[in-house]
Amino acid sequence: MSARVLVVDDILPNVKLLEAKLSCEYYEVLTATSGQEALEKVKNENPDIVLLDVMMPGMDGFEVCSRIKSDPDRAHIPVVMVTALTDTEDKVRGLEVGADDFLSKPINDTALMARVRSLVRLKMALDEWRVRENAAMQFGVVGEKTNVMAEPVEGARILVVEDKEFEKNKIVETLAKDHNIAMAVDNGMRGMELATTYDFDVLMISLDLKNEDGLRLCSHLKSNERTRAVPIVMIGEDEDIGRIAHGLEIGAHDYIIRPLERNELLARVRTQIRRKRFQERLRSTYEISLSMALTDSLTGLYNRRYFEVHMEKLLQKNEQSKKTMAVIMLDIDHFKSVNDTYGHNVGDEVLKVFAERLKNSLRSFDLVARLGGEEFVAILPDVSPEWACIVAERLRRSICDTPIRCSVEGGALPITTSAGGTLITHGAHSIEEILGRADKCLYQAKHEGRNCVVFENIGKLDPEKYKEPERAFFQEQEENGAIGSSPAG
Amino acid sequence: MSARVLVVDDILPNVKLLEAKLSCEYYEVLTATSGQEALEKVKNENPDIVLLDVMMPGMDGFEVCSRIKSDPDRAHIPVVMVTALTDTEDKVRGLEVGADDFLSKPINDTALMARVRSLVRLKMALDEWRVRENAAMQFGVVGEKTNVMAEPVEGARILVVEDKEFEKNKIVETLAKDHNIAMAVDNGMRGMELATTYDFDVLMISLDLKNEDGLRLCSHLKSNERTRAVPIVMIGEDEDIGRIAHGLEIGAHDYIIRPLERNELLARVRTQIRRKRFQERLRSTYEISLSMALTDSLTGLYNRRYFEVHMEKLLQKNEQSKKTMAVIMLDIDHFKSVNDTYGHNVGDEVLKVFAERLKNSLRSFDLVARLGGEEFVAILPDVSPEWACIVAERLRRSICDTPIRCSVEGGALPITTSAGGTLITHGAHSIEEILGRADKCLYQAKHEGRNCVVFENIGKLDPEKYKEPERAFFQEQEENGAIGSSPAG
Repeated sequence: MSARVLVVDDILPNVKLLEAKLSCEYYEVLTATSGQEALEKVKNENPDIVLLDVMMPGMDGFEVCSRIKSDPDRAHIPVVMVTALTDTEDKVRGLEVGADDFLSKPINDTALMARVRSLVRLKMALDEWRVRENAAMQFGVVGEKTNVMAEPVEGARILVVEDKEFEKNKIVETLAKDHNIAMAVDNGMRGMELATTYDFDVLMISLDLKNEDGLRLCSHLKSNERTRAVPIVMIGEDEDIGRIAHGLEIGAHDYIIRPLERNELLARVRTQIRRKRFQERLRSTYEISLSMALTDSLTGLYNRRYFEVHMEKLLQKNEQSKKTMAVIMLDIDHFKSVNDTYGHNVGDEVLKVFAERLKNSLRSFDLVARLGGEEFVAILPDVSPEWACIVAERLRRSICDTPIRCSVEGGALPITTSAGGTLITHGAHSIEEILGRADKCLYQAKHEGRNCVVFENIGKLDPEKYKEPERAFFQEQEENGAIGSSPAG
Repeated sequence: MSARVLVVDDILPNVKLLEAKLSCEYYEVLTATSGQEALEKVKNENPDIVLLDVMMPGMDGFEVCSRIKSDPDRAHIPVVMVTALTDTEDKVRGLEVGADDFLSKPINDTALMARVRSLVRLKMALDEWRVRENAAMQFGVVGEKTNVMAEPVEGARILVVEDKEFEKNKIVETLAKDHNIAMAVDNGMRGMELATTYDFDVLMISLDLKNEDGLRLCSHLKSNERTRAVPIVMIGEDEDIGRIAHGLEIGAHDYIIRPLERNELLARVRTQIRRKRFQERLRSTYEISLSMALTDSLTGLYNRRYFEVHMEKLLQKNEQSKKTMAVIMLDIDHFKSVNDTYGHNVGDEVLKVFAERLKNSLRSFDLVARLGGEEFVAILPDVSPEWACIVAERLRRSICDTPIRCSVEGGALPITTSAGGTLITHGAHSIEEILGRADKCLYQAKHEGRNCVVFENIGKLDPEKYKEPERAFFQEQEENGAIGSSPAG
């Protein structure tokens, strides 16, 4: 994938050399010869990756990297630090301020190109999600912009595949410093088994296993849908650079060269954990926006839109089925006067508690939705007529039995509900028809003096007749999975 | 990126040869030796790409490809047909049943690997979106699964960069068959200009321009955020295969070899148009789910959730500003009795028309939301007290002036609304406080006999005093962008 690369170095010949190499591979190259200029270009030109010299007069590379990584709008841009330094401390310092890799001069071309390609590919995948996040934020679906550097790096689950006993123990011990849970195995087959069974945050794979090709394992992991998204850190020798480059092509995210330096190991693993968690967060934004589209913001119940979609599906299934489904419409009695007397805030409090009680009085596979205002509907798939009446009576009592706590003098208001129910047997039905039938019964219940249930073809229910059965009998029904439901919890 | 490749050929040595080559590049290889077996593996093993022999006894490659592409759950899997045939007719037939490319035996390794890598990369990007689409579908946010093969291929906008006059004309003429709008230019600079100015569906780039490197142009296009997602089809000579492979690495989607065959050209361009439109459709699912989260499904107005987010932002801005903002709460008079007398269907009809009239009576930068039930709110940022009263009166009259059409005897119901308004000047305010103040005025308006507006600190408005000014004066105000708004349209 082509991309825009920003090359930063205070020595012009160095800039020119890198520019020529990258340009030859058809990258578009931007350049800067000071830290200040680099920051400006990062801000205005939005590069896809930055190759950053460490030693520069004025603002050095560490400072530049740290500033890029602390800007929520720029922190996702990968930074590769380039330096003549071989001191591990510098390397770790670079990684800790957020650099994605650290290459030593003179630069090995294979390593450089493999690295740039791999980081650009990761960035492009993230970019898609960032665009969506921005849209979601503008709409207020998510509150705050996520920043990759703000993700926690502790307590991750890490799988280590390494057959050198000493190295294995050293890795596990080092990872424990961040309270990570590391599992170590010494062969690829077992590694593959574990990786496809549990959810890991990072996989560390040795490239010099005695009896296996570590790259083959990477390839299996990247080909499997279950493990494809989990970042892989390869462990290799200096002379492995060709195979490491191949590993990055296959899709591994990073590598570390032996002898393993503890702080470098931690820094690299942290980067991967952060990036994985960042990506998961971006994805969850999507799921949040989906669920917001389907729930009522005040009560948290499903909204009319979801009710209609769900009901449509049930009705389709019902056409062939021999089962009976009940639909119960409920309306809070005299709700208007609650609003008028105590204000809308109190009205909202009442709606919330009302919704909560309905939900708690139903089975997990029943559905209750707010149709709008003070109007609710419950769907009970697969229920006998008698049980439908018992449940409707239970819903009614769940409201009138205890006054509803809210911000009024006395701390609670006595509230009642009226309900209208209808039973649907197989055959073609429309949502309008069914809601119309339930609504007619509800209207009759209001007419009968409220705080009561009217069922189609049965009339006003006698509360004594449709009482909950004895607990023992009830549980039996529930266990048979037949028709019952546990009483309000 | 590693991936699972399914190799299909009835001749075992051919299978083994491809398997060895791909495995060497760390792909995971599945094999099948008949069309039937191939379909089963596609169904059960979900490969990332299929390499498909054309000539097989029983079910041939065309049939296999066509079956894969007609399954909505599998159509996105790229298929490369492999054949000893060099007949263009066969090639076109393959492309027309949905194959993504057509390679001739003996297979050129560079071409094969570049092709596989490029198609796998495109698939992985799509996979992310397909997962989200599935989620959205289960929730019922989108109704139907999209299928790449069902996308229309006509009427696309195509840019052709080609300096051979004869070829250029041939391409434009050929593309016109599908009612595409093709623009042709003979240099890269002009191509880049057009591509970044207009939205194209496909870019066709010659790799043997006289004065320029076509690959460099591809690279620019892929590095630019504006053009990154537009598919590129390269045009090259047979001996260009190395550069073509490089182009696929850079991110071009496809290529065609001279001499250009009209039907092949059309088939390849169609594939790209289809894929681009498919991708756009997947993305729009996300935007639909976002907007559903923020609008009321019955009236299409913003919902309470959006109102709160938006209001919060306005209040923050308002703290420093010297401008006055008006908040008007509206409630349909005696709405309960509409529902009780005529049923909820009629109630819903009334709500829809009511919402529509409010919207039409406001300026584009005002906001009107349904808070729930029969309760609405309008926000007028930057308005004088007098104009706020005029607008509130306009809203009231927009309802009572004309009976609302709905399914009742007579075809319409006379409806009125009461409104309470409040003005917000700079300083800190909370949403609760403001809604509380408006609600109090609304309550007073109900008390004053309904079908009237009460404004805080002003009292019940005199309809005569707050009439719309003469049209001429009114338009002037509107044109000055000051405070007015055109009357209900």
